[in-house]
This record gives sequence, structure tokens and C-alpha cells, in this order.
Amino acid sequence: MINDLATPASPALPTDLSRRGFLRGAVLAGGGVVAATVAACAPGVTPPPWTLGPIGEPNPSSASGASTAAATPDASHDHGSPGASPAAGDHDANAAAVVKRFLDGESAAVEGAGNQPYGQPKLDGDTKVFELTIDPIKHRIDALKDPIDALGFNGTWPGPRIDVIEGDKVRAIFTNRLDETTGIHFHGQQLPNNMDGVPHVTQDPIQPGASFSYEFTARTTGSHMYHSHHNATDQVGRGLLGAFIVHPRDPAQRVERKYDVTQDIVWISNDSLGGFTINGRGFPATAPLVATLGDKILVRFMNEGVMMHPWHLHGMPMHVVARDGYELGSASFRCDTLGVNPGERWDVVIDCTEPGAWAFHCHILPHAEGRDGMYGMVTALVVQQPTAKTASTGIGTASTVRAAALAAGSTALLCRVL
Amino acid sequence: MINDLATPASPALPTDLSRRGFLRGAVLAGGGVVAATVAACAPGVTPPPWTLGPIGEPNPSSASGASTAAATPDASHDHGSPGASPAAGDHDANAAAVVKRFLDGESAAVEGAGNQPYGQPKLDGDTKVFELTIDPIKHRIDALKDPIDALGFNGTWPGPRIDVIEGDKVRAIFTNRLDETTGIHFHGQQLPNNMDGVPHVTQDPIQPGASFSYEFTARTTGSHMYHSHHNATDQVGRGLLGAFIVHPRDPAQRVERKYDVTQDIVWISNDSLGGFTINGRGFPATAPLVATLGDKILVRFMNEGVMMHPWHLHGMPMHVVARDGYELGSASFRCDTLGVNPGERWDVVIDCTEPGAWAFHCHILPHAEGRDGMYGMVTALVVQQPTAKTASTGIGTASTVRAAALAAGSTALLCRVL
Amino acid sequence: MINDLATPASPALPTDLSRRGFLRGAVLAGGGVVAATVAACAPGVTPPPWTLGPIGEPNPSSASGASTAAATPDASHDHGSPGASPAAGDHDANAAAVVKRFLDGESAAVEGAGNQPYGQPKLDGDTKVFELTIDPIKHRIDALKDPIDALGFNGTWPGPRIDVIEGDKVRAIFTNRLDETTGIHFHGQQLPNNMDGVPHVTQDPIQPGASFSYEFTARTTGSHMYHSHHNATDQVGRGLLGAFIVHPRDPAQRVERKYDVTQDIVWISNDSLGGFTINGRGFPATAPLVATLGDKILVRFMNEGVMMHPWHLHGMPMHVVARDGYELGSASFRCDTLGVNPGERWDVVIDCTEPGAWAFHCHILPHAEGRDGMYGMVTALVVQQPTAKTASTGIGTASTVRAAALAAGSTALLCRVL
Repeated sequence: MINDLATPASPALPTDLSRRGFLRGAVLAGGGVVAATVAACAPGVTPPPWTLGPIGEPNPSSASGASTAAATPDASHDHGSPGASPAAGDHDANAAAVVKRFLDGESAAVEGAGNQPYGQPKLDGDTKVFELTIDPIKHRIDALKDPIDALGFNGTWPGPRIDVIEGDKVRAIFTNRLDETTGIHFHGQQLPNNMDGVPHVTQDPIQPGASFSYEFTARTTGSHMYHSHHNATDQVGRGLLGAFIVHPRDPAQRVERKYDVTQDIVWISNDSLGGFTINGRGFPATAPLVATLGDKILVRFMNEGVMMHPWHLHGMPMHVVARDGYELGSASFRCDTLGVNPGERWDVVIDCTEPGAWAFHCHILPHAEGRDGMYGMVTALVVQQPTAKTASTGIGTASTVRAAALAAGSTALLCRVL
Repeated sequence: MINDLATPASPALPTDLSRRGFLRGAVLAGGGVVAATVAACAPGVTPPPWTLGPIGEPNPSSASGASTAAATPDASHDHGSPGASPAAGDHDANAAAVVKRFLDGESAAVEGAGNQPYGQPKLDGDTKVFELTIDPIKHRIDALKDPIDALGFNGTWPGPRIDVIEGDKVRAIFTNRLDETTGIHFHGQQLPNNMDGVPHVTQDPIQPGASFSYEFTARTTGSHMYHSHHNATDQVGRGLLGAFIVHPRDPAQRVERKYDVTQDIVWISNDSLGGFTINGRGFPATAPLVATLGDKILVRFMNEGVMMHPWHLHGMPMHVVARDGYELGSASFRCDTLGVNPGERWDVVIDCTEPGAWAFHCHILPHAEGRDGMYGMVTALVVQQPTAKTASTGIGTASTVRAAALAAGSTALLCRVL
Repeated sequence: MINDLATPASPALPTDLSRRGFLRGAVLAGGGVVAATVAACAPGVTPPPWTLGPIGEPNPSSASGASTAAATPDASHDHGSPGASPAAGDHDANAAAVVKRFLDGESAAVEGAGNQPYGQPKLDGDTKVFELTIDPIKHRIDALKDPIDALGFNGTWPGPRIDVIEGDKVRAIFTNRLDETTGIHFHGQQLPNNMDGVPHVTQDPIQPGASFSYEFTARTTGSHMYHSHHNATDQVGRGLLGAFIVHPRDPAQRVERKYDVTQDIVWISNDSLGGFTINGRGFPATAPLVATLGDKILVRFMNEGVMMHPWHLHGMPMHVVARDGYELGSASFRCDTLGVNPGERWDVVIDCTEPGAWAFHCHILPHAEGRDGMYGMVTALVVQQPTAKTASTGIGTASTVRAAALAAGSTALLCRVL
């Protein structure tokens, strides 16, 4: 059982999965049903634009919800192609265009998604060996901005998501390919002092070209992180960060089992070099969370930035079940807005009881919306109808959601793998 | 029972109620008794200036608490009339003058107080219909600053406080009188997706001159908000925000009944265009909370700003009973300083066991005090002696407090109305 | 029993205690054992520099943890003497030098440590009389920076730590030696209104040269503060702050007894005039916390600044047991990162189960590390092996830790005194 993470059943990524098509299906299903239901009691309300026509075509209706509009904007604006910017200052056209990019699946289209599952580690006896490089990278925040000179683990920001089981012997070998020194701290783990990754205190800095092996038994269960602890304002701000999850050995104790969740999602924020990001991306390139009506999903918030961010989910509350990996027990609570301070991790379970596309964003508004529409720390939780999901893609229900989530680059479905 | 909010018994606002007189009475009663009690063990302590003489006359004593003063400021300074500013740089004179404005009841003197109860909605069958305009307004932060170009619902910042009962069918019709588009989000409510108010995602923007009807059944009990979700950094920062309270259908489940509170107070902070405000006003125009010794009061903190604010009450702890409308139950706690992040709502019950005038302010000190004295996010909880209150106004106990609170523009007494 | 704090047994401060020697011993013991233990499974890892050779000699090895280094920095850099700054821009040399200053015991070497126990108050009948001056002071943030023009109580920033017992009659006489007015607020205490220390509201400002007596019965148990409440952004920012602890009368109710802690540590942060400080000092002049393996220690976080700080302890979790002096009970929780907002106090118990030197810092990284290494809000929790501690100093176990802690200027061992 100790190595059950070492041989994950790789969820097949169907080559014919169209992210754009998937999301359109999801939205048609979830949103459309809702629109139809409500139409009776809200006559005159135009269904959301994304429920009409193929994505990519001009919005067929920009009329307001009531017939009393004194001014109607020029519907001939091309809100569609990401490359064509509306005129500066045209708030609505810009705001619509950026939402369209999100709904068209920009997150899947941008190369280099971070936070991907590390996958199967090598085994050295009963030690799980994770090999990570520390790299200068060109990183894209979204599809239109120029890539930035950033740092990554194994070439991505965030680095690979590492999942282990309580009691696993872990060896994480970091090779420094930067032209500066560094050191890696496993934030939240109880481990031997000389494995703590604080250069000049518990070890020498890792020189350019050199490697360092962090070796410890994974004792501290829950949601943790690994990141630079050397010139860290700069190095973490440029991307040297990743998720480290320790699942309880007893499956019955795992959060994902306790709450019967179908998805296990890591959500890392940062707010320095790349602006306001979730898993290394800013809206509209942030990945949507896609779930099925009736599902419960687990979101592990992690803050690798320098500011507190209060995450607000529309439509449904969050059940907050763990803090820094420690279950809250009788101190657990429900909320719809959860402030996460730098360095903290909070596990929340969301019961996806409401169909539709729900905004999910930082409620410090300038981190989420500007004069040209939403940007930065915004994504959506899309709750699909169970029937619609299959119809839209022709792929089995569970694997569709998982494949889409993996393609989106922000979600990892490990519940069934562990 | 479903419509018991539709026919509230309007608390009479006595035309002869002098806010200035009321507050003077309150303070004399609460503060004076305390001063007298303590005098025996702190000889030489001058009673607070506001316990002496009619408000508006010069402070009869600015001598220090002990007789060893090496330097005594010029007592001839006119700390009194709001229009007469002491010399720049004279900290104490400026600080005293601004406190005097507060004690003189500036909050009641400034036109256009927001957060007033919406009152009785129209009924369309069993649907409660709330009609709100979205307006450009001239808004006063206090009596001396020039009005600012702001936004309001029904002409005020915050907009009207809306109270409904769990299970109520709600129709909120917003008419956009701005020259820009907008959309309104009921923050915290579980509602149909196309009623969620996120332009370009769940609806088209509401055009200038147009209306939009948000129609839903109020399912999510507790302290919630409504605000712009369109160009929202700007529009919420300029005042498009208000409280939306859903009281449990079962009266025994209502916070105000569970804790036997006599007042139900909404406290919305903002920190953008208008500076640091509570219910749209900065000190000294913030409304005091006025209670009677032995009362319990409910304060519903809501943060519509972009910064966390840690609210600190002097003299008594706060019992924190709900977060974002969800009761904390075994996770409830007591504190005297409560950080409220943007988008969060926290319900606290205060047991008014200590008589006197207690400062109640944000403990990020630059949000509350500058080189010319207190400003911004400061108010006071005035706990009166039961006997004094009646004497000071000649009006019955309960109605006095309520009338004063309503006049102050910051408190709403709906406990007995519901 | 009421006066058991009035006659504390003064822990002897051995004159021969070498802070440098003590810390070297501690580190050799804790860190060295760990290094030896782990060496078997992490071959090639260089022991931390501070486990080798006398402190003050050049680091014998700056080779990286593996033999694949492509570039090795010039090991002839003098990382040692605090007075000799490495070349600007040489990050590692600067970062190492500042850590060395910390390990050499800079906190004990800098004059004027604040937060020292007030000691035995005078008695006037059964009233405990505390006499405090309010002074302009020259304050050192660390050994190398020029002293700053600050404010202090009894000449220090923070002022003396005051400990009383629930029910004690307290008279705190503050004499204002500044050339400006002031007023002192006992933050968190329930006391008579005219003792609340809000100038112009509950009292007149204390004039230069004058005194004011705050007289009250200590009713509110737990971790509280006293600080200026007059021109407070400025005056608290310059140092007018201190800890006020009210221990429950029933010893069985005291946090230190309930959790069997061996140390009772006050940790006050500030972030204005002096930059990012813990108990008035910035790294490397912050005092380390020194404990023995198996000990439990109590840390009372208090935030006197204007920003939230999320405190992160490496290696072990914190058990959060009280907030603003109120025990959390069933709402208590464990975490490794704890956000503390301005004005809040949080009591945490740390079970020192992991030997070594563990970083303990604010996780807003720019508050803790810059381009020239760590600074500001950083210290360490040093967990020693029980045997090593004695060997390093020749003094008995318990008193060694206490004396060292007292010498360091940041910890107060009152558990056995009360």
C-alpha cells in the first residue's frame, strides 16, 4: 500500500477532446437549463450570450434585459477574436471580449500549464524519488501578454504537484539550473532540521549547477507546499513554488474520502512578478473548475504571494474543513468568502448543488477587475447537469470531467488514483 | 407570516427629538455616573469635557489630570464650532474639535444618510417587489468636506437596507440611471445562475436607462449584500453597495431572538473614493451606536472595501456568532478585535455591560487617526444608564433608543418589527 | 494570593553566561544531532556551517551539497565580522553574514532590550502601583543601524511587560516626559469608562510634564496591551506600546498551567518607524526562542503595527488556544502559519518535539527577506537536546534556558514565578 501512488492509473487524455467544445457543452447544459427554468418568472430576460450559438460568433443579442434601454451599444463590435482589441476605453466591449476568451478555453490553449501531477516517482528501495530541476523559464500569464522571465520547477510555474502517502520515505532531488544560488523549503512538513531548506541556517545554498537531496519521511498530512527559501521574496515571486500533498495512510482519514469528493483541486495564488495569478495564470487564462451537479469537490487554497486574498465563490458556500493541513473538526465552518494569508493553506469542500457558471474570484476587487473588465484572480466553477455533460462530448461522464480538468491545467483528479 | 415584513409597524420618529440633546443626555448619564464612581479612587482626574456644561460651549477645563503640568495649552482655543478650524498643526485643538463635532451629533445633521430600512415592498401576488434606482449622487462623507460625485441606490450610499424572510419570493428591479452600464450581484445568496448579476457571464450589462429584475426565492439566511459586479472596483468604490438580510423563517432561529438582542445594526465599511468610511460616513459624521446598560445588540459587519479592517471595541468583548450568514455554532468565539476581509460578513453580539462612551474603530491606526485627530473608521458605542435615558428625552425607553438610532442613520431596529 | 506577583523570586542572571557560547552550545546540540542522524540517508550533505568550528571563524565549507557544482563562489569572502559589509550585490555573502550575526547573539549584545518584566510593583494598601515614564528615546533596531528617535515606556520599546493577577487592584501612573500630549489605553481590558485612555472622549490629554493614574481592577484575563491612544498612528508607530497580561486567579485556569508550558513569551510586532520588528528589534537582532526538546512553550502574539502579519513556524505546528485573551475552547485549532491583524492577540502553545534551529518569521516575504538576505520579522526557535544544554554552559537545565531567554531580551519566564 505504501507505493500506491507510485503506480497511478493514468487517466487517458482523449486526443479528440476539444476544450472549446467541452466548455460550450458544459455551459449550454448548466446555464441553459437554468435560464429556461427562470424564464417563466423573469420575462424579458435575455439568456446569457454564451447560451446562444456557437462560441466564436458575434453575440446575437446585446439588448438589455428590459425594453426601456435609452442607449444600445454598437452590436457590431467584434468581441470575439482574442487578437483584436476593442478600442481603448470601450469598457463593455473589452469586458465581453475577455470573458469570451475565458469561455473559449484560453487556459487550455496556453502552453506550459503548471501544477500538473508529478506522476510516478522512481523507487530506490522503498524511497520515492522525485527529481526536480530549478529552471529559468519563459512563462505565459495568458495568451496575449508577452512571456515573462520567470523561474520554475521542471519548467513550470507552479512546479509539479507532488502527492505522497503518510509514512512514505521521500527523496526530492533538486538540481539548480539557475545562475544564482537557492534552497528549497517544504513548508508545513515536520522533518529533520538539516532538511528544512533554510540556506545559511540548516544548509549551504545550492550552487548553480549543483543538486541537493531533501530526504525525510512524510509525517505531516494535508495540504502543504514546497518553495524557495532563499532570496525568497524574489524567487518565490518569480515562480519557485509548488504543492506538496500528504494523504493520510488510512484512506478513511483522507479528506477526499471523508467528504466523498470527486475532485481534488490545488489552487495556488501569487501576486508578484506575474501579477495576480491562480496556478500561475491570470484571467482569462485561469482554468475553470468543472463539476457535475451533485458532486462534492475539494479545493486546497495555498497562498504563495505577499498579500491576503479573500476568495469568494458565487452561488454556493464553502465548507472549510482544514487549515494548514490540520483538520478543523469542531472549528470547521461555512462561508462564501475566505481570506487566505500568505503561507496559509485552507481546504474547502464545495457541494455543487447549483447548476450554472459561477464566478470564483478574489474579493479585493482591484485584484479581479479593472477598467477593461475582469483580469487576474478570477475563474469560475461550472456546475453541469449530469446528462448534458455526456451529450456534449460523447465521452463517459467521469472521465470527461477529469480529462477536461487536467487539460485545463489547474485541477488534478487523484481521488480515484490513490 | 410570509409577509410580516411587508407591513412593518413604523417606529414613530418624534419630531421633537433633538439628536444633540439626546446624545448629551446619553453621555451625561453613562459617562457621568462612571466618572463619579471612579472619582474616589482617582482623585484629581478631570471628568471628560463632555460631561460638563452644554455642548457647544468652550471646554471649561483643559487642565491635565494631574497638577504637575509643565505646560498648559491655551484654553481659549475655540474647539467648538465645526466651521472654525484651529490652526494647522495644533494637534490637540484639532483633535478636540473633531470629537466635539461627533458628540454634537454630526451624523444626524448631515443630509442623505444611507443604509436606511427599505421599508414595505410592494406585493405582486406573494412576491415582494423592491424597486431601486442606480443613481449618480452627490454624497457627503461628513459635514465639512465638499460632496463627492458618487453612486447610490435610491440616492444613498449605502443603498437601502433590505430585510426579507427566508422563503420570501423576491423581485428586485434595478433601474440604471447612470450613463454607464452596470449589473447587480446579491453577494452570498444561493439563486438561479442567470440571476447572479455577473455581466457577460450570467446576463448582459444593464444599459443606461434600462432595468433588470433579479428574481429569486431568498434561501440563504443571514447577513448578505447587494452591489455592482460590473467595473466593480470603480462602481463599488463609488458607493453601489447595500445590505441584504434574510431572517430565518422560524423566529426561534433568528440571531436577534437567539441572543435576545434589542438592536440589529448593519455596519458596512468602504475604503476607496470616500476614504475610510462606515456606512458611507467618516468620523466625526459616523453614527454612534446607542444602547442601554444590560442590552445586547447585534452588529453585522460587512466589508465592501479593498482592505481588511480589524474592528476594535473598547470596554467589552464581541461574541462572534456567524460568518457570511452561517452560524458558527461550536466555532463561535469572543474577541475585542475582529479582522473583516473584503467581501466577508461577520455577525457579533455585544453584551452592553459597561456604561460609558466606548471607542469603536479600525485598529489599522492610519485608518482611524491622523495628525489632526481621529477621522475615518471611528465611532463609539454609548452605553447609557436605563434611568438617564428617559430623563434626557422624556420619551419611553425603547422608542428613544430606536428613534435616536434611526435618526443617526446607522442602526435599524427591526427586531420587534419582524 | 492576591499579591503573589508582588514578590517574585528573581531568577538569577549568571554573570558568566555567554550568550554566544550558549547559542553555540544549543545549536551544536540540536543541530548536530540531527545532522548526524540524517547523514546516513543523505550522503554528501554538508552539515550546517554553524555546527563546525568556533563561531567567528570563516565558514570552512561553502561547497554545495553535491559534487556537480559548475560554479563555486569565492570561499575567501569574510562572512564574519558584523562591521565588514560584503560587497553590495553579493547576495550570499550578505545573507550569510546576517545569519552569523544572529547566531552570534546580536540580540543580547544590543543595549536597551524592551519587553522586560516590570518586576515587583509597589503596594499602596492592596493596590499594585506601576510607575511608568513616557520618554523620548534613542532606540536600536539592530547593532549596525543608527539609533532612531523613538518613544518608550521607562526608556524601552516595547515598554515593560506587566503581569498581574485577575482581581488585582491596579494603579498605573504614567508620567509624560514628551514635549507633546498623550494618553494611554489598556487595550482589551474591561474597565471604568474614564480609565479608558481616549483623550477628548474619556479624559483630557496628558500634558507634557503631567501624570495620569489609570486605576482599575484587572477583570479581563489573558493577553492584552497598553499603548498610546493619542495621535496614535504616530505615537504607537514610534514605540509607545507594551504587554499587559492578566493571569487567572485560579492557577488551574492559567494557560501556562493548563498546557504545562515552561516558558511564557510575549511577541509584539510593529511595522512603522522601526521597520518590521519583533519586540522592537529587526533580524538579526531579534532574540531567538530557546527551548528544550520535550518542552511546551507559550507564545503570545500581539500586533501593534498597521499590517497583518502571518507568522510561520518551521518544523512544528502551533496550537492556537486563545484569541484576544479569550480561550478558544472547541474553536481552538492547529496551524503552522497564523495571520495576526493589527490590535489582535493570539496565544499559541508549541510542543517542542523537533530538535534543531527552526526559522520563525512573517510569511509576507518582503517583511522577512530582501536582496541582501533575511531581515526584519525573522527569528528562530532553537530546540535543544536536554543533555547538550547543560554541557554547553555548566548551569542547571531549567535556569539555563530561562537565563538565556531573559538575556536575549525577548522572553519572560514567569510560569514558575506566579
